[in-house]
Amino acid sequence: MAESRPKPWPVNHWYVAARADEIVDKPLGRQICGERVAFFRRADGQIAAVEDFCPHRGAPMSLGKVEGDTLVCPYHGLAMDGDGRACAMPKQRVAAFPKTRSFPVVEKYGFVWLWPGDPASADPAAVPTFEWADNPAFAYGGGLYHVKADYRLMIDNLMDLTHETYVHATSIGQKEIDEAPVATRVDDASVVAERLMDNVSSPPFWSMAQRANGHDDSRSVDRWQVCRFSLPSHVMIDVGVAYAGAGGRAAPAASRTSATVVDFITPETETSHWYFWGMARSFRPQDAELTKTILEGQGAIFAEDLDILERQQANLRAWPERRLLKLDIDAGGVHARRLIARAIAAEQGTEGAPAPKRPAAAA
Amino acid sequence: MAESRPKPWPVNHWYVAARADEIVDKPLGRQICGERVAFFRRADGQIAAVEDFCPHRGAPMSLGKVEGDTLVCPYHGLAMDGDGRACAMPKQRVAAFPKTRSFPVVEKYGFVWLWPGDPASADPAAVPTFEWADNPAFAYGGGLYHVKADYRLMIDNLMDLTHETYVHATSIGQKEIDEAPVATRVDDASVVAERLMDNVSSPPFWSMAQRANGHDDSRSVDRWQVCRFSLPSHVMIDVGVAYAGAGGRAAPAASRTSATVVDFITPETETSHWYFWGMARSFRPQDAELTKTILEGQGAIFAEDLDILERQQANLRAWPERRLLKLDIDAGGVHARRLIARAIAAEQGTEGAPAPKRPAAAA
Amino acid sequence: MAESRPKPWPVNHWYVAARADEIVDKPLGRQICGERVAFFRRADGQIAAVEDFCPHRGAPMSLGKVEGDTLVCPYHGLAMDGDGRACAMPKQRVAAFPKTRSFPVVEKYGFVWLWPGDPASADPAAVPTFEWADNPAFAYGGGLYHVKADYRLMIDNLMDLTHETYVHATSIGQKEIDEAPVATRVDDASVVAERLMDNVSSPPFWSMAQRANGHDDSRSVDRWQVCRFSLPSHVMIDVGVAYAGAGGRAAPAASRTSATVVDFITPETETSHWYFWGMARSFRPQDAELTKTILEGQGAIFAEDLDILERQQANLRAWPERRLLKLDIDAGGVHARRLIARAIAAEQGTEGAPAPKRPAAAA
Repeated sequence: MAESRPKPWPVNHWYVAARADEIVDKPLGRQICGERVAFFRRADGQIAAVEDFCPHRGAPMSLGKVEGDTLVCPYHGLAMDGDGRACAMPKQRVAAFPKTRSFPVVEKYGFVWLWPGDPASADPAAVPTFEWADNPAFAYGGGLYHVKADYRLMIDNLMDLTHETYVHATSIGQKEIDEAPVATRVDDASVVAERLMDNVSSPPFWSMAQRANGHDDSRSVDRWQVCRFSLPSHVMIDVGVAYAGAGGRAAPAASRTSATVVDFITPETETSHWYFWGMARSFRPQDAELTKTILEGQGAIFAEDLDILERQQANLRAWPERRLLKLDIDAGGVHARRLIARAIAAEQGTEGAPAPKRPAAAA
Repeated sequence: MAESRPKPWPVNHWYVAARADEIVDKPLGRQICGERVAFFRRADGQIAAVEDFCPHRGAPMSLGKVEGDTLVCPYHGLAMDGDGRACAMPKQRVAAFPKTRSFPVVEKYGFVWLWPGDPASADPAAVPTFEWADNPAFAYGGGLYHVKADYRLMIDNLMDLTHETYVHATSIGQKEIDEAPVATRVDDASVVAERLMDNVSSPPFWSMAQRANGHDDSRSVDRWQVCRFSLPSHVMIDVGVAYAGAGGRAAPAASRTSATVVDFITPETETSHWYFWGMARSFRPQDAELTKTILEGQGAIFAEDLDILERQQANLRAWPERRLLKLDIDAGGVHARRLIARAIAAEQGTEGAPAPKRPAAAA
Repeated sequence: MAESRPKPWPVNHWYVAARADEIVDKPLGRQICGERVAFFRRADGQIAAVEDFCPHRGAPMSLGKVEGDTLVCPYHGLAMDGDGRACAMPKQRVAAFPKTRSFPVVEKYGFVWLWPGDPASADPAAVPTFEWADNPAFAYGGGLYHVKADYRLMIDNLMDLTHETYVHATSIGQKEIDEAPVATRVDDASVVAERLMDNVSSPPFWSMAQRANGHDDSRSVDRWQVCRFSLPSHVMIDVGVAYAGAGGRAAPAASRTSATVVDFITPETETSHWYFWGMARSFRPQDAELTKTILEGQGAIFAEDLDILERQQANLRAWPERRLLKLDIDAGGVHARRLIARAIAAEQGTEGAPAPKRPAAAA
């Protein structure tokens, strides 16, 4: 990209770029953090990521095919390895061909993680760890949505679940969400927004989950939502219900039904993002039918957010000068944006500089 | 909108923004004169209009729902009254929330009229009156088209009906329209272009109407078209046929079949508009089947204009410097544009300023 | 068009604008070299080309209808002759109406040729001649594709047929194309890139053609591809196979199956073009069924290029500063672009000026 204006995301981080099963025997072209990337799986199964631009004539490499450890350009057959080196081209000496930019990439937990920043600082060990990942005690199901909105609008959305009462009224919303105060904590790289709702009745989604878990959904429950934002743009939400008085999050499994909502929010452009959503649950992890039911339910619920976010984005473009409110319920999103802004400034060596007035879709 | 360039429409006027039946129990979002507006009907049935932007996070209020006298934001539940005041939000003190812009709005004649300008000068009594409106001696049927063209191109269209011979050749066009001279009169707020065609045969649409009216459509008729433009952008056209020599417009009902073509032309953006079209007739007003037949016929005829107007708009954008001709037949549109330009200048205090060279789609 | 930046094509040339059968009794609107043109066929069968803009109100003339030797505006009936003169309009004196720009146009070989430049220099005799055209010893079949890519990307494509191995692997591609060297020759107005592949097996398309020609497709063949670019943007490719050792291109008809691939590449805008493709063959020219089979096969093969070219164009826009490689296989396209650039410079009197850095999609 030829622009010099700083992008509204930090680059020296691991971003989820794809589900691992999206890249099997064919390459995948996808824009991540403004970079057009061609992903492919080498003969040894390792995933590689190169700029989606053949140095010969500019054709997209992601339309090509995989041969051994190389990606072969669909146009005139330049073969490139995962480091972006031209390895072969019919009747050509490729040694002097310019090297194509490659990106550090890691496959972990069923996801493909891309590092769009300085390769020298990319440490695979820095891919975050999750209790639920690669853990047979948990079942995971998830999907991918493309959303035409600044990725930070999705972070705002997930760090303030009062919207569930309005956007998801028939599934996970309930009046008590609005009425319970939210407590927000911040540290260097994460923000936690916690809401506890004691002695309420289960909303439809949790009733279903309780019944699937063999629990009595007619009893009052203590419900919780603990949203954790981590740089650059992940939001994990511990959610669940337990019989009222049984200990809430700490209740024994026999009286608790709980899960983690998994949200990887990856910028595509300044006004669009890839939303990898899912749920990891610890109850009945072997029950594939239940995984499917939850996946479909969650997919429908999360789709309810898309129209609002895209229309919100359109409104913010139409009124770029307008200041938004920052209420207590917004604290999670506001603090997450501050961490993001600070990470960008640190990368650009502008920490001491004054904050921008209001970026396109920021508060 | 953040632009400072003057808009090509006057704002201190009542514009038709919707049909009343478009706003029942759900809100309606629509851009009128460049303003994004959320309309809703309060518990008492009164219609309200506020900016379609929630002051909390910028979500479109028009995606929300109506509760009592308030519109509730679809995202986090801010409830706003028709004056744009935040009345309630779960667990929030809303007294200090910024007030959202509201617009004067009036429901009259089955239409919703919006005043996009200075609210202090909005006088509901200034909504124009029409003989046919709320009058059981008339039947009205109409529709709404969205047109991707400057609203003034539609005014031009309606103030020069010679186009009927070409665009509507199979329904209301006839060679005599071209051949009859047009007489144009102007006063402060309206322009009248009158064309009389004596002793002609009825074109297909009027034959149908005469037969429905119990008249003999094989006889020669005197036909008339009297187009009246009124600020800001309404065109009422008295049309009809009477047995030749019976007195034309003044002929007794027994030998006359006549109606008013109703055109409310409301800017959406600088290159698009809402076209509320319809017909009010005084013959057989109780005949609902006839109303339906005429509505369908008129809808099909008026749709014939859309492609030409949108392609004309595209041409004017491609050749912005080109001067158009101003013929006698164009006098109606030319004078209407002058009244519009004068009204804009008066609002901006630039009456003495030189006229602009040629606005995007103006002559 | 109001732009002053020089267009990336020379204008004092004949361009193929349409197939003759596209213009029968109705006008055709098409943008050619940035000019919006309305084509129509006069009563005497001659084709005329005028700017697609009615001088009255700017409506597109191509939506109108043909009456005698005139094109009648669809909006208010202005009748224009093929020279762009307003001839008639109901009740109007048209003598003083401004003349509309008209374009020199010639119908030849089943194509409509347009001269977008200075009419004074348009010589119908300069329309190129082709052995296969209007020649009963040849059969011709062809089609038209609209491609959202700079027209020069299509010239590059056709002047370097190594892409066949990758893009058309299942029809005309074969490994030996890559392995045979290409010889490139240049003169003032044309570039020839020649590739000979001796003693190879016929690829699927040529096997089919050989069998249709009564030849034995199991025998080894000498195959050739001789691509000839001519200003402004035509590429004729002599292609064929002959029994190995029989003389190649010069082999007698009894052992040769050959044809000319016909490519007229006409700019629409700076980033789109009209691609008139076809094939003229000398074997079994009377066999209409074979013509149809070849047409369908070629249409499917050539469609394989479109996605790559459009995605290549998108890539070049995203990375405007990037330099592409110029390999020996690219010499045909590189030299063709030089001829084009020289022709543009000659027209603009800037021959001595330094070459532009890199135009949008150029190398």
